[in-house]
Amino acid sequence: MNFITFSEQELREFTFAIFTQMGCNEADATLATDVLVKSDLRGIDSHGVARLSGYARLWQKNRINTKPNIQIIHQTPTTATIDGDRGLGLVVAPFAMQIAIEKAEKYGSGWVSVKNSNHFGIAGYHALMATEKDMIGISMTNASPLVAPTFSSERLLGTNPMCYAFPAGEHPPIVVDMATAAAANGKLEIAQRANKNIPEGWAQDKNGNATNNPNELKSGGSLLPLGSDKEHGSHKGYGLSATVDILSAVLSGANYGPWVPPFVAFLEPSKNPVGEGIGHFFGAMRVDGFRPIEEYKKHIDNWIERFANAKTIDPNKKVIIPGAPEFAFEKDRAKNGIPLIDVVVNDLNDLALELKVKKLS
Amino acid sequence: MNFITFSEQELREFTFAIFTQMGCNEADATLATDVLVKSDLRGIDSHGVARLSGYARLWQKNRINTKPNIQIIHQTPTTATIDGDRGLGLVVAPFAMQIAIEKAEKYGSGWVSVKNSNHFGIAGYHALMATEKDMIGISMTNASPLVAPTFSSERLLGTNPMCYAFPAGEHPPIVVDMATAAAANGKLEIAQRANKNIPEGWAQDKNGNATNNPNELKSGGSLLPLGSDKEHGSHKGYGLSATVDILSAVLSGANYGPWVPPFVAFLEPSKNPVGEGIGHFFGAMRVDGFRPIEEYKKHIDNWIERFANAKTIDPNKKVIIPGAPEFAFEKDRAKNGIPLIDVVVNDLNDLALELKVKKLS
Repeated sequence: MNFITFSEQELREFTFAIFTQMGCNEADATLATDVLVKSDLRGIDSHGVARLSGYARLWQKNRINTKPNIQIIHQTPTTATIDGDRGLGLVVAPFAMQIAIEKAEKYGSGWVSVKNSNHFGIAGYHALMATEKDMIGISMTNASPLVAPTFSSERLLGTNPMCYAFPAGEHPPIVVDMATAAAANGKLEIAQRANKNIPEGWAQDKNGNATNNPNELKSGGSLLPLGSDKEHGSHKGYGLSATVDILSAVLSGANYGPWVPPFVAFLEPSKNPVGEGIGHFFGAMRVDGFRPIEEYKKHIDNWIERFANAKTIDPNKKVIIPGAPEFAFEKDRAKNGIPLIDVVVNDLNDLALELKVKKLS
Repeated sequence: MNFITFSEQELREFTFAIFTQMGCNEADATLATDVLVKSDLRGIDSHGVARLSGYARLWQKNRINTKPNIQIIHQTPTTATIDGDRGLGLVVAPFAMQIAIEKAEKYGSGWVSVKNSNHFGIAGYHALMATEKDMIGISMTNASPLVAPTFSSERLLGTNPMCYAFPAGEHPPIVVDMATAAAANGKLEIAQRANKNIPEGWAQDKNGNATNNPNELKSGGSLLPLGSDKEHGSHKGYGLSATVDILSAVLSGANYGPWVPPFVAFLEPSKNPVGEGIGHFFGAMRVDGFRPIEEYKKHIDNWIERFANAKTIDPNKKVIIPGAPEFAFEKDRAKNGIPLIDVVVNDLNDLALELKVKKLS
């Protein structure tokens, strides 16, 4: 596996050109590019430009509308539901988060459920829009079914991530951004490519037996919820995933559970959908709706310092503040560039050829 | 271990008498009783009347104020912070949740952070106050430090539960009510009493080594976050627990992390507190702030039925809808009574003697 390193600017220009060729207007192409490239900058390679051709394939199948009429279809002063009109989640999600933020500016908090959307990139991007305004940001989405609830052999839930982002004072924000499965699908894909076993507790085969074989997922197996088995609390991971599914989809009118349409274009969506597209959920709360911001910042910094300096088991490993590794990546990659594996570069260049965009060199 | 079964009414009268003798007025004693007895009814024996003497011991040490002046100290239309004035959490929490509900009635949603409180019983009680009004209820609390963050040997977090409750149509509400640790402390206490080993992944000794010995917790060991180890996602359980801690305490001005005062009266609170008492966080969102309630109910019922009828690994085990076992317990115990183990009955009768209350017979 070889890596080729690109500057942030190169990847931005390339990605912008692809989205433009897909029919996005300038503002939407800029925004969608920012969401994807920020993911690479932050070290979350699985959700960055590596997914670009995935979005393009869905657009080619007319499952993504690059000229959406995104609108509020229901609201109160602090809640709203948005119809994403089959738009790119990368565009629909920031639109929805912006509405949550505006409601919070006026009333203290804002909450937005979204239907008829598509994959929204990293949850953290949207939640961090709130921390820039000294608000707590919340962001979640449902996703195509890969995870079996406790006791089941059926895939009924996505890896359904939830993200909570908290502004801090001297330190970067705390960002808890996590799939509610024991391990993300990306980790299994890495093991599949490397022909390696996976630890017990990540997946089960199609009959629900424990497995170390990452390929079982391709033949009817499932990922396991956070907690892995009942004895270790998999019903909690299942409950969290259910929470994300309900807030994102049952509340908005999107598809939920086994009906969520797949991200990959080669799998067809359900013929009998229970809603429209996939669903997201966003929230914003003003910190100063609870406490003067300076008091809060003093204490959140104290929290961070106490945890970062906690006694560790291995003296070479520090306790990690949620989100801190991603901020370190961002600093490094903005300066030193973003390494992409050659298979991703080849895939992007095939796409470039097809859409008549200048190749990555 | 012998069980003695009492009717709901007997336990209510006894508990009400104890709280009255502790100085609660009639309304507060009735409410605190309801929270504890509902826990027993719902089968969560660890958080019911078995804890009554724990509250009394804290009151005797002047760490619980049974005549609190609970008040809002900061607010916007949809957010508020409450000073619990060292009151019983069993009283402070429903007060706070009621304010969240009233704000939601007016503006669509309401969010309340609480400082200067004490143990609030089961999170589900408070969240269910919202579902009765066709709202989604959210409830969380921090708790005395027993859990080590990933990579640490220090106890820095409580078992910090979070609860999401969703109203349904024909079915009882979905209630996701979970400690963010791999296993609750109550499970270790059961193993300690029975002199049994615990599964790997629940606890570590004081140096951070894996252990099967439940007694390690008494000599400096820690519980592990949901996920158990890094490979299985313990950083996610740690992140969720941190989220509860920050929303409950950094936002309100309560103690957080290792400074949270212990529930047991024989352990002293920190001499250098960073806030007041323990903290809680509550939320309420009107379902019809997002979608007409009848549409939502049709789909949440469909969600429940699809999951309840999912294919299972063992044909004798059904997929459990979060909250369903507790509703089944409630139905059964309201009719057939509540079994208490003899050690709990003896403890309650010692307390009755001390506070001059008629014993349980």
